[in-house]
Amino acid sequence: MLIHRTDIRIEWGDCDPLGIVFFPRYFEYFDACTNALFHGALGVTKAEMLRRYKIAGIPLVQASCNFFVPSSFGDIVHVDSCVTNWGRSSFTVLHKLFRGEILAVDGMEKRVWTVRPADVGSEIKGQAIPKEVIEKFS
Amino acid sequence: MLIHRTDIRIEWGDCDPLGIVFFPRYFEYFDACTNALFHGALGVTKAEMLRRYKIAGIPLVQASCNFFVPSSFGDIVHVDSCVTNWGRSSFTVLHKLFRGEILAVDGMEKRVWTVRPADVGSEIKGQAIPKEVIEKFS
Amino acid sequence: MLIHRTDIRIEWGDCDPLGIVFFPRYFEYFDACTNALFHGALGVTKAEMLRRYKIAGIPLVQASCNFFVPSSFGDIVHVDSCVTNWGRSSFTVLHKLFRGEILAVDGMEKRVWTVRPADVGSEIKGQAIPKEVIEKFS
Amino acid sequence: MLIHRTDIRIEWGDCDPLGIVFFPRYFEYFDACTNALFHGALGVTKAEMLRRYKIAGIPLVQASCNFFVPSSFGDIVHVDSCVTNWGRSSFTVLHKLFRGEILAVDGMEKRVWTVRPADVGSEIKGQAIPKEVIEKFS
Repeated sequence: MLIHRTDIRIEWGDCDPLGIVFFPRYFEYFDACTNALFHGALGVTKAEMLRRYKIAGIPLVQASCNFFVPSSFGDIVHVDSCVTNWGRSSFTVLHKLFRGEILAVDGMEKRVWTVRPADVGSEIKGQAIPKEVIEKFS
Repeated sequence: MLIHRTDIRIEWGDCDPLGIVFFPRYFEYFDACTNALFHGALGVTKAEMLRRYKIAGIPLVQASCNFFVPSSFGDIVHVDSCVTNWGRSSFTVLHKLFRGEILAVDGMEKRVWTVRPADVGSEIKGQAIPKEVIEKFS
Repeated sequence: MLIHRTDIRIEWGDCDPLGIVFFPRYFEYFDACTNALFHGALGVTKAEMLRRYKIAGIPLVQASCNFFVPSSFGDIVHVDSCVTNWGRSSFTVLHKLFRGEILAVDGMEKRVWTVRPADVGSEIKGQAIPKEVIEKFS
Repeated sequence: MLIHRTDIRIEWGDCDPLGIVFFPRYFEYFDACTNALFHGALGVTKAEMLRRYKIAGIPLVQASCNFFVPSSFGDIVHVDSCVTNWGRSSFTVLHKLFRGEILAVDGMEKRVWTVRPADVGSEIKGQAIPKEVIEKFS
């Protein structure tokens, strides 16, 4: 199972008046980590991934985090990310954010391989994930 | 049980290249809704709440969302927020974001009533929630 | 000259460890104010404005702010916004953010009426602003 | 004159429905670049800088950007940052964001070396910048 590591420097602007990371920023970090995981697996940027597979994106149907230890500006953390489950059109990504050896935050995202049908104004919808994509993660 | 309603206009800058709300923004909305819920219950702003109860904040230990229906810039949505559970020092807030009659997103936050001990450099930690606070939500 | 007023509640998540608004948030506020100004003038949401005038957006070529007085979470401020200059394809928006009677921040945006040519992969570019749009602001 | 280079990967979540960077994000990037510049010059994180020099922060009195060329998710850009002027308590930082060889955005920040007086509730205010700080940038 492919695990992608992303290093993150916690920025002043990511922190709240308590001096710790404002929690929605962790979801932003994890979104970037998922994109980096796919970049690592597929060897192309997200922009190129959208073109190659003719998808509109990989939006979420579910997201959750557990916050164990706060972080603050200047901290360097790293996130280990992997896909833990592949469905037909959906998949689950797990993120673990570490401060040194300490697990500080974990996160889960359930996402959908999504296309935008050609007829104008139609809604986005899920589509089967290509086997060749899934194989690149094993 | 006190339910607070917050109206939100989805902004251009909250949306991603897919044209829908970038999901961490929902967690930002819900954070603002929790603050508005406490403002409504206690009758004071968060700044005044921190001073009055000598707390540092109400940071999260857990957060999750289910995304049922996407929203886009220009949409007006509303969020109904309430505290569904009071522990000794922690509590759970539930948010339901509606587009008209449709439940578009629901969210859960588990938060801790948090103080910063007087000795310099000491960690933030939970403290018992005052009864008078809890009573204002019933 | 049409002036649009927008009320803004400063949120906890907009503030930095110093306890005051993290300055890029003012640019976000002003972006929302520009959209509200156009909504007020044209009577349609930004989404409808893009469809009606067949434009891709109104991105910026220049932005600046002067920060006179800080604001903090819980503060209610208001912004007065107006278009101060119309060029052929560009225009200038001025924002004044007040805390009560006090001018706290002013901001300037220079934006371009922008289309995305039909041929795939082509760059966005400016286009003449329709007279009927400009007239709605006088 | 010390110039600090920061590499930035443009993230999906930094981009708007037009598919390009939402302009307030550039001000966030530049804030992080200023912190990295000071980190490089002083050899300590911002958290340590605040402690060492007993300051509350380096908030802005002015910020501006010129946007020449848009960037999009997946782009790797770099920013060259330097202090171009030192006043008594204020200083000016210049940022140039490049896509390869092309200058895509430039930015200017005027900031103040700021303390929070010891008496509770007093306002933040500027203070003379220590000579030893300025010397580290030459």
